[in-house]
Amino acid sequence: MSEQLITAPGQVSQTDTPVSVVGTPDGSRPGWSIGLDVGGTKVLGVVLDPSGAVRHQVRAATVRGIDGVVGGVVDAVHDLADLAGVAVEDLAGIGIGLPGVVDPRDGTVEHAVNLGIVERVALGALVAAQLGAQLPVQVENDLNMAALGAAHVITEPVADLAFLALGTGVAAGLLLDGRLRRGATGAAGEIGHLTLIVDGLPCKCGQAGCVEQYASGTAIDVAWPGPHSRPAPLELFDAAAAGDARAIEVRDQFAWAVASAVRILVLTCDVQHVVIGGGVSGVGAPLLDAVRGVLAAEAQASPFLASMGLAMRVSLAPAGSPVGAIGAALAGRLAREGAI
Amino acid sequence: MSEQLITAPGQVSQTDTPVSVVGTPDGSRPGWSIGLDVGGTKVLGVVLDPSGAVRHQVRAATVRGIDGVVGGVVDAVHDLADLAGVAVEDLAGIGIGLPGVVDPRDGTVEHAVNLGIVERVALGALVAAQLGAQLPVQVENDLNMAALGAAHVITEPVADLAFLALGTGVAAGLLLDGRLRRGATGAAGEIGHLTLIVDGLPCKCGQAGCVEQYASGTAIDVAWPGPHSRPAPLELFDAAAAGDARAIEVRDQFAWAVASAVRILVLTCDVQHVVIGGGVSGVGAPLLDAVRGVLAAEAQASPFLASMGLAMRVSLAPAGSPVGAIGAALAGRLAREGAI
Repeated sequence: MSEQLITAPGQVSQTDTPVSVVGTPDGSRPGWSIGLDVGGTKVLGVVLDPSGAVRHQVRAATVRGIDGVVGGVVDAVHDLADLAGVAVEDLAGIGIGLPGVVDPRDGTVEHAVNLGIVERVALGALVAAQLGAQLPVQVENDLNMAALGAAHVITEPVADLAFLALGTGVAAGLLLDGRLRRGATGAAGEIGHLTLIVDGLPCKCGQAGCVEQYASGTAIDVAWPGPHSRPAPLELFDAAAAGDARAIEVRDQFAWAVASAVRILVLTCDVQHVVIGGGVSGVGAPLLDAVRGVLAAEAQASPFLASMGLAMRVSLAPAGSPVGAIGAALAGRLAREGAI
Repeated sequence: MSEQLITAPGQVSQTDTPVSVVGTPDGSRPGWSIGLDVGGTKVLGVVLDPSGAVRHQVRAATVRGIDGVVGGVVDAVHDLADLAGVAVEDLAGIGIGLPGVVDPRDGTVEHAVNLGIVERVALGALVAAQLGAQLPVQVENDLNMAALGAAHVITEPVADLAFLALGTGVAAGLLLDGRLRRGATGAAGEIGHLTLIVDGLPCKCGQAGCVEQYASGTAIDVAWPGPHSRPAPLELFDAAAAGDARAIEVRDQFAWAVASAVRILVLTCDVQHVVIGGGVSGVGAPLLDAVRGVLAAEAQASPFLASMGLAMRVSLAPAGSPVGAIGAALAGRLAREGAI
């Protein structure tokens, strides 16, 4: 595992304060659990202690293809279990989130194109077999896991939240009334391909003017081209803060598009919280301020929007927090309790 | 009750074929239940027999104000119980749907402006007190009741559906994974005030270009002004079918807007079915054909949209079926079982 970077336990503990687990009654001690967030470039893993606190974290390069993905997951599970001093067979459960079409009932995955998986494969069963342990392996779309994780790590645990990922594309994970809303075909949260501007920019999906063409990291890369020494969103927001007129224009259009995505989520699902994550969320407070600014201005013009309190529903995923992996670990634990 | 028109039992039975009740295990016999759909102009009531079939139906003019609403509901309950030959105290439950902000946990209602109710009132408790019977009175927003009712009456009972009401405004009721999705503030489904066209027609909500300005019955009234001998949507669709160029243009724009509302519901929530109801749905097959036509054309241009199968998810609420009242009766029954 030469690609794997295991940070020292002392450095990786995300919090020393135990946080209660969503969906778990106070006082229950469901055991240790491990969660993996398998992305196109890296695998992030965490182990949660029985109180729900992150105790260790590992990171490895993604190896594409089903064998590579299964191997990477199994290695990460062993590493995390060793770090925690817990035998794999004593874990309460394992969760795996990944960008693909998942059937969480049987742990199968298809169309995980960025992972080199196209045809349907039984990921959950393959991982369980290689681990040789009888324990729940819960597989979900990565944004669903991020929604669970975000609900766990924002100020106080909540049961109603959309995780709005702004990265290469735009999509959301939905936790509604304490339950993941996966949708009839596993496609809930695909708001990146709703039309924002009629006859707008062409989208690779075949439509034009999609939300994703204006509210994604890719949209910033296009509208604020490099060369950059840092990620384009950071450069853009800094340039705008410094007064660059063109940067202000691009930033404001971007913030408007993100605010529109928030509006779509809240007016359709009435989620209590919208947590912005994904690569662009690394911009931090200036991004949140810009989006809230648009929402507040729109509320000034519309008593209806004002009554919906959109600006106060929006927050950022905690910087550096591996919400996808945390959510996966929670899902693994909840699966044992039949609560997911 | 001079305004009340009680149709004869023989004429009002909606179906002679018992239909299983959503959420009720086969074989259970939960008793008779009554549902009321209280609108701005009329109160529709139905009584369901233990099998879930509509047995009788009543209709009365709405009397505005809390006393009028409570009195209308209580009278309708007595009339329906008499028609069914069931004592009020033997009912499994009563449900009331109305256009307003409802807290279904305690049966209170506020902002039901079309009913002359502004301040919060305990509608459920007032109705129960006047009936003098110990039975569940479940109060919900009318579109939530319509979603429950539509899920019951379309071809086979389903658990995942949006009821898209096209009337004075545009809004939806959501039944997700078998549970009503009311939202964190009771505002789920308010898609009529999402932006369809940036800088489009001004909306009374203070925004511009709202879905409601293009996909509502009001939008047709404006775009296809009278005088008409029949409702404007019927005249419009007939004129378009007869080849009137302007009517075709207005119809196609309307169908596009409705298709956009369907897209919003499916891409955000991934509902299995979208049932179009409300006054405009009285147009019938030509409306469904037009909306499906837009969705099919969009799918031709976008493999992503094609994979979502939008056109096949859309249907019309059965003509003349009081889905709101039926859903209310189901809700009253489900409340007794603690299933809502």
